[in-house]
Amino acid sequence: MAIKTAGEYIESLRKLKLDLYLFGEKVENWVDNPVIRPSINAVAMTYKLAHEADSEALATTESVVTGEKVSRFNALFKSTDDLVDKIKLQRQLGQRTGVCFQRCVGMDATNAVFSTTYEIDQRYGTEYHQRFRRWLKYIQEGDLCVQGAMTDVKGDRGLSPSKQTDPDMFVRIVERTSDGIVVRGAKAHQTGGVNSHEMLVMPTLTLREGDEDYALMCAIPTDAEGVHLIYGRQPCDRRKLEAGDIDVGNYGFGGQETLTVLDDVFVPRERVFMCGERDFSGVVVERFASYHRQSYGGCKPGIGDVLIGATASMADYNGVSRAPHIRDKIAEMIHLAETIYACGLACSYEGQKMAAGNYLSNTLLANICKHNVTRFPYELCRLAEDITGGILVTLPSERDLRHPVVGKYIQKYLRGVADVPTEARMRMVSLIHSMTFGTTAPSYRAESMHGAGSPQAQKIMIERLTDMDYKKRLARRLAGIDAREEVTA
Amino acid sequence: MAIKTAGEYIESLRKLKLDLYLFGEKVENWVDNPVIRPSINAVAMTYKLAHEADSEALATTESVVTGEKVSRFNALFKSTDDLVDKIKLQRQLGQRTGVCFQRCVGMDATNAVFSTTYEIDQRYGTEYHQRFRRWLKYIQEGDLCVQGAMTDVKGDRGLSPSKQTDPDMFVRIVERTSDGIVVRGAKAHQTGGVNSHEMLVMPTLTLREGDEDYALMCAIPTDAEGVHLIYGRQPCDRRKLEAGDIDVGNYGFGGQETLTVLDDVFVPRERVFMCGERDFSGVVVERFASYHRQSYGGCKPGIGDVLIGATASMADYNGVSRAPHIRDKIAEMIHLAETIYACGLACSYEGQKMAAGNYLSNTLLANICKHNVTRFPYELCRLAEDITGGILVTLPSERDLRHPVVGKYIQKYLRGVADVPTEARMRMVSLIHSMTFGTTAPSYRAESMHGAGSPQAQKIMIERLTDMDYKKRLARRLAGIDAREEVTA
Amino acid sequence: MAIKTAGEYIESLRKLKLDLYLFGEKVENWVDNPVIRPSINAVAMTYKLAHEADSEALATTESVVTGEKVSRFNALFKSTDDLVDKIKLQRQLGQRTGVCFQRCVGMDATNAVFSTTYEIDQRYGTEYHQRFRRWLKYIQEGDLCVQGAMTDVKGDRGLSPSKQTDPDMFVRIVERTSDGIVVRGAKAHQTGGVNSHEMLVMPTLTLREGDEDYALMCAIPTDAEGVHLIYGRQPCDRRKLEAGDIDVGNYGFGGQETLTVLDDVFVPRERVFMCGERDFSGVVVERFASYHRQSYGGCKPGIGDVLIGATASMADYNGVSRAPHIRDKIAEMIHLAETIYACGLACSYEGQKMAAGNYLSNTLLANICKHNVTRFPYELCRLAEDITGGILVTLPSERDLRHPVVGKYIQKYLRGVADVPTEARMRMVSLIHSMTFGTTAPSYRAESMHGAGSPQAQKIMIERLTDMDYKKRLARRLAGIDAREEVTA
Amino acid sequence: MAIKTAGEYIESLRKLKLDLYLFGEKVENWVDNPVIRPSINAVAMTYKLAHEADSEALATTESVVTGEKVSRFNALFKSTDDLVDKIKLQRQLGQRTGVCFQRCVGMDATNAVFSTTYEIDQRYGTEYHQRFRRWLKYIQEGDLCVQGAMTDVKGDRGLSPSKQTDPDMFVRIVERTSDGIVVRGAKAHQTGGVNSHEMLVMPTLTLREGDEDYALMCAIPTDAEGVHLIYGRQPCDRRKLEAGDIDVGNYGFGGQETLTVLDDVFVPRERVFMCGERDFSGVVVERFASYHRQSYGGCKPGIGDVLIGATASMADYNGVSRAPHIRDKIAEMIHLAETIYACGLACSYEGQKMAAGNYLSNTLLANICKHNVTRFPYELCRLAEDITGGILVTLPSERDLRHPVVGKYIQKYLRGVADVPTEARMRMVSLIHSMTFGTTAPSYRAESMHGAGSPQAQKIMIERLTDMDYKKRLARRLAGIDAREEVTA
Repeated sequence: MAIKTAGEYIESLRKLKLDLYLFGEKVENWVDNPVIRPSINAVAMTYKLAHEADSEALATTESVVTGEKVSRFNALFKSTDDLVDKIKLQRQLGQRTGVCFQRCVGMDATNAVFSTTYEIDQRYGTEYHQRFRRWLKYIQEGDLCVQGAMTDVKGDRGLSPSKQTDPDMFVRIVERTSDGIVVRGAKAHQTGGVNSHEMLVMPTLTLREGDEDYALMCAIPTDAEGVHLIYGRQPCDRRKLEAGDIDVGNYGFGGQETLTVLDDVFVPRERVFMCGERDFSGVVVERFASYHRQSYGGCKPGIGDVLIGATASMADYNGVSRAPHIRDKIAEMIHLAETIYACGLACSYEGQKMAAGNYLSNTLLANICKHNVTRFPYELCRLAEDITGGILVTLPSERDLRHPVVGKYIQKYLRGVADVPTEARMRMVSLIHSMTFGTTAPSYRAESMHGAGSPQAQKIMIERLTDMDYKKRLARRLAGIDAREEVTA
Repeated sequence: MAIKTAGEYIESLRKLKLDLYLFGEKVENWVDNPVIRPSINAVAMTYKLAHEADSEALATTESVVTGEKVSRFNALFKSTDDLVDKIKLQRQLGQRTGVCFQRCVGMDATNAVFSTTYEIDQRYGTEYHQRFRRWLKYIQEGDLCVQGAMTDVKGDRGLSPSKQTDPDMFVRIVERTSDGIVVRGAKAHQTGGVNSHEMLVMPTLTLREGDEDYALMCAIPTDAEGVHLIYGRQPCDRRKLEAGDIDVGNYGFGGQETLTVLDDVFVPRERVFMCGERDFSGVVVERFASYHRQSYGGCKPGIGDVLIGATASMADYNGVSRAPHIRDKIAEMIHLAETIYACGLACSYEGQKMAAGNYLSNTLLANICKHNVTRFPYELCRLAEDITGGILVTLPSERDLRHPVVGKYIQKYLRGVADVPTEARMRMVSLIHSMTFGTTAPSYRAESMHGAGSPQAQKIMIERLTDMDYKKRLARRLAGIDAREEVTA
Repeated sequence: MAIKTAGEYIESLRKLKLDLYLFGEKVENWVDNPVIRPSINAVAMTYKLAHEADSEALATTESVVTGEKVSRFNALFKSTDDLVDKIKLQRQLGQRTGVCFQRCVGMDATNAVFSTTYEIDQRYGTEYHQRFRRWLKYIQEGDLCVQGAMTDVKGDRGLSPSKQTDPDMFVRIVERTSDGIVVRGAKAHQTGGVNSHEMLVMPTLTLREGDEDYALMCAIPTDAEGVHLIYGRQPCDRRKLEAGDIDVGNYGFGGQETLTVLDDVFVPRERVFMCGERDFSGVVVERFASYHRQSYGGCKPGIGDVLIGATASMADYNGVSRAPHIRDKIAEMIHLAETIYACGLACSYEGQKMAAGNYLSNTLLANICKHNVTRFPYELCRLAEDITGGILVTLPSERDLRHPVVGKYIQKYLRGVADVPTEARMRMVSLIHSMTFGTTAPSYRAESMHGAGSPQAQKIMIERLTDMDYKKRLARRLAGIDAREEVTA
Repeated sequence: MAIKTAGEYIESLRKLKLDLYLFGEKVENWVDNPVIRPSINAVAMTYKLAHEADSEALATTESVVTGEKVSRFNALFKSTDDLVDKIKLQRQLGQRTGVCFQRCVGMDATNAVFSTTYEIDQRYGTEYHQRFRRWLKYIQEGDLCVQGAMTDVKGDRGLSPSKQTDPDMFVRIVERTSDGIVVRGAKAHQTGGVNSHEMLVMPTLTLREGDEDYALMCAIPTDAEGVHLIYGRQPCDRRKLEAGDIDVGNYGFGGQETLTVLDDVFVPRERVFMCGERDFSGVVVERFASYHRQSYGGCKPGIGDVLIGATASMADYNGVSRAPHIRDKIAEMIHLAETIYACGLACSYEGQKMAAGNYLSNTLLANICKHNVTRFPYELCRLAEDITGGILVTLPSERDLRHPVVGKYIQKYLRGVADVPTEARMRMVSLIHSMTFGTTAPSYRAESMHGAGSPQAQKIMIERLTDMDYKKRLARRLAGIDAREEVTA
């Protein structure tokens, strides 16, 4: 089957019979819901780029599984070049949408599960890998959208899964039948949780003895029986329900996260990819984290490009573009965004082949990448807020602009340089507002902090992945504690 | 007349016949409007503290003008101790409200205009100072709330007022009559612009030759003929219109800014305090800035205390309070908040007496204080977001929590440690959300950046107020370029 | 006896019969030793300022003990004004010397021991406080220089004193006789360890059960039997032995630290101020730390002034003073130095009276002060190095400048702007070099980091001194977990 | 001719008849001079690695010019892989020497001049490129060491070359003869200025009209008539003249910079590669800067590895390795070093082919790389100083350690954990001292700041190389100022 167009993707969603709640109400026609639709558009952009001449080469690739051209989001990384192309595609998508386009979690999960199942089978003689390949073929042929489902709700972070007061704080197997398994629990912050056809479930941390029931990987249709989706609030979400398009800022696109409840969901055997192999929980978590920490080296620079362009535009509209301190701050914004991109590229180019045949990003450098992402977008926002001015949080509403009495005051007094219309200036302020405070701020701030693991998770990996003994030896030799190196020897 | 209670203050507002617009509609009963009311409550807290045993000594003082006990917000600073008490009062108010309580601008403007009018009169034989004292007596006796009105809308920031395409981009005198003057223009980002009885108008920058009509200080009732108020949007403002109180976060209190249009407003002579004395424009701007940059050394640490307490609570609720990296980050938050406070205290203690008799904060240190405020609250927010977790932007709505079907899932799955109710955890998340993204985030982020002048304004003052020649001499002597100091000489 | 002049102080040192080692040799005439003399000059400046009209009021005060005018460095803080004067005096001394002038440790130790001995006596009926007053009278009457001796060598930092493999890693009582005690151990990094007449010994940390022999305070003449002083190396110390004065940079002044060995030194009873009262070890350590962390709010801004003046001069000499990025960086340097100063002032003004009658700086704010000192001077150095240019580490020697063949090349090619002599430019480069890499860099870098406690020590205190329960209550009330505050109630 | 061994390289230097001055004296046997020798060893390591099995593939490559295997330092970059290999080689060399190994400037200059001469010839029909190839063949066949000579002394930085009071402040052509040219001026901060056989001269900035005589590229033997070398001082350089090896820290290796005076040096035509083609001055400067800013992405992480290993060792020796704050700081050091490395890799992998056939690093990302280098090593140093402790600047001399009387005190009291010898601890302290204050600190601090251009140079390039119009368009479309993108269109 051909790769879907954006329109075909959106139509395909209508067939999903989701049990979805938003603002305390069950949502029936969720595809056309104005709060939800921008997030669908963002995913749809991943489909659109597969059909554009300029981006097709990045957005599609040949499948190892089917031999057909498939979306990169459903493909395996066959080389480090594939890893690099992923980053470049993500940057373009960030630029085009200004938000999280949600489809990377599935891509990263797919690759992590692919290599992990291969290795489980090697050790245990299981058949997870072949099952997974069949499922992947189904996904590729349908050009479906997959969400990765990793983050458990976790309860008391100081306790392991089986030690929690409520054993359901991590998704677990509650029953094993001859046909499959029954799972219970909830996944939090599910990016694209509504907009995906399928979810690929993985454990969220390295499991210890006694946690075997939590060692679980499987695929579940988003509209399976027992799946309940609760839509997370976003800042200023109600603005999407107002008339007009200015106050939302980024009117066309949005991110999405759900609390996804799995209330005794049955998963047929064919869709189970790990079932108790606790010793591989850390493996899949670490691999997924590597891929997903890499991903931020692509999308966040792309979103940053939008914020930089918006901020530079505000400087134009305010008449201060040539002020040295403004130029310096904008150059700083570029510097920080490109540093992230450089890290994204580096961990991709330095990737390595896994036993299963697909490629993994360099895990140390992927952690370096993501750790910078937990810092720099915040400074980009701060600088954008500096240059934009106080108007960022005092802008009147679009309805005030359209008002017969006060509209003319706004037109007159909120103009910056004379040759830029007041409405354009308001639109640009509102875009920056949406990226720093509003509907899309979670995509650039909170997600940068917590997506693919919070900062401390990276610090721990950085410490662990460093060969410190080697570094100590270097120092001891130069210090003359070990024998000094004789250069002519 | 006695100092008003919070209730009396709120009732007094009902008498104001404001021409006020919000979301494109004229607001009639604005005092009870749910979007506006939290901001009124914040101002009301300044009245409440004047009646509490613990804070009365900070919140009131004896008036130089009337000899009566008056609100500190309407008083002159009679000593450096008064400046220090201001800071300590502001910190308490920040702690109690978690937002901007809006009344400092008027206090700071009052003190700046007081000393400036005295000096104008000394030079020009005018009678502004006596007029101002009479107006101040009126304010003190009525215990009125005053907003300082400084920030012009500015148009093209690269052009001076009289060089703008539209001459009204800075408030100006358009007519001088035998009884007074007529003024036109607009003031942007007016903190407490609706909640004040009076506005005290000042110029926004140092004026050059040709800008004489912009050299203007005067007092205008907020409901004077020709005054039009347009309420600025705030992030998540619509949440205040929803049922429930959780999703707003800080449900009780809020900030407020307006675009205040002065459409040919007549100001009687008795209320005019500067009228063309261009050479004093820079004086009053600099003094107001000194006071107001000092102010941020009080309120922002107070708001910071709330954010720190909320973040530490989240660590408790998540079960990670003892994790070393969490403790380190919280200690860092305290460190940054207290650094601001230290700067606020220092510029107060080091204040100096003006010719008019009142005291001015140390202007160099006040600029240091504010410049740190343009940085540290952002880092506090970043750390709060780090510790709070992704739930910050994925929390379901309160209505979902109350929902018969999904409410139980939320109760079950969004619990952290077992002994803290899920709802408490949601409330704390929502408070932090309001401070970092939502309704009160402007008070802690954008206002920290732009209130009392943007970062570059402080950099310029820091450069100007430093005796660099002295520092160069120190260096030259130690370098032996000038004669070295002989210590035994 | 009158307060000594700088010259009298220096002469008084000649009477000390020190057992002092430098570069592997015993130093006999150490007062005139060119490596040591600059550090003596720095202390001498504290004497000189007591005789200058402009600084006498800061540098001297009336003694509580004798009723006479004494050096501030030997005085008790009688008020918060005294604490503030200390800071202002320290800033002047930093400006005049560009280095650590070494005498603050004794001043701070004196005040800490004064109040602690008072409280020990209150609890235990001992007579330490009267002894200490007598000793202090002796110090004041002789206008002697006192070093505080706190930092033990510590061995394995993971073990308490009595658990060390070698019990002497913390100074301890090895014998108690009828006349006094015998002490053994070593104090590291003794600031002004050679230039002081007396050392005032204190414990270095809070002692636990079993550590009683380490609970020790006493006064020891620097040249007592059994005291051995080993002079610490400083970067570029050998340059002081070369001909010429350019390459040293700060030729006139220097810091000083010693390893001070106490090899079974007898201390007569009259000079013992704590002897086993373990429960007061933490008290004196914390108080000394409070005073000394305050101190850095004075001296380091003063040294910073020199570096700022030197850097601004380099910008002049290179012809780039008006470049916006240079101006911005210099303003940043000022901002950071003044932030430290503000913290120094704040913790002084907010000091409190102790039971013994003297005043203690506000300990939380003193820790805030010092913690900023562990960061900002490094950034000041970085910015100074940025503006100075690569010449900072490639400057030819003074002897090359004087050389008949190559001297003319240096004169010609190392000139910056035409009207500043090359030699002046070289001198300024060399001064900055000394402050960032060379002889005086320890005063501005390493001492800023470790003096009065390393960064983590402040983080721990900041955490401990914060009333976090209060902050949590603030948050709970605003979040609606505790009852929301009704402002009109 | 075969690639030289380290020993052969060193011997080859003896043939150079340099006119070299150090400490005001002409140095005859400079190869064995203890101040200079460590810097020779560092260059020699580049030769040594060409003969080691593990590094040969990185350290050598096939020459485009000769078809033979040559040192990478004398080779052209034939692919992006070559650019990556350069970075990996540089990291190894940084790890092995702990300092600047000096040979990159020549490598980078060679590649920049190669492509620039090709393009000059294309435009002007000159024959520079063939001349350059012949010279490069000579260099490769002799396996000579080349220094790049770019940085002019510059005089008044506010004036262009021809506007200076002294026209020699930038190297210029003072005479054109039938055989060649005569050049005059001086190059500052010449890395490896003494240790190279040849210097490759380039202009230092983009030249304007009237500056034609400064548009000059040529090759000059380091010992040519009229070349005078003045050795730059380094911190603690005199320690190399003392007995023992501890106090120097990095005893084996060092950096080197000279002031290189060209006093009317004749350059034969065959060695002239640019002579007045002013419009290519900016081209070669920018290309060289790109290569050299890339270079810092290799060497500085390598040096950082040494500092990290040394700091972690100190934590071991002090008994604090497991303290969470120590672990966090060391992980932070790794994070910063690896961020630089990631940038170095990214700008290499993203390189592009030039018209002449060799490859250029991605210039935007190379600037990003270097700009991080102007910041992160300083923070690495700060953290190293934090963890090492005050001993860093108070360590007694090695001669004290060896002293019959005080040596035993040092042995006893400067021990950390019981099982590490005191001398080992001293050696490690001294290594860190050398990297942060001492002989090798210029390699990690000042060179990181100024090598390959000061921070502002990168800021300017970052601004210039960004397609800001594209970013603005992205923002305008998402803001709805330009037509919004219809995703299904």
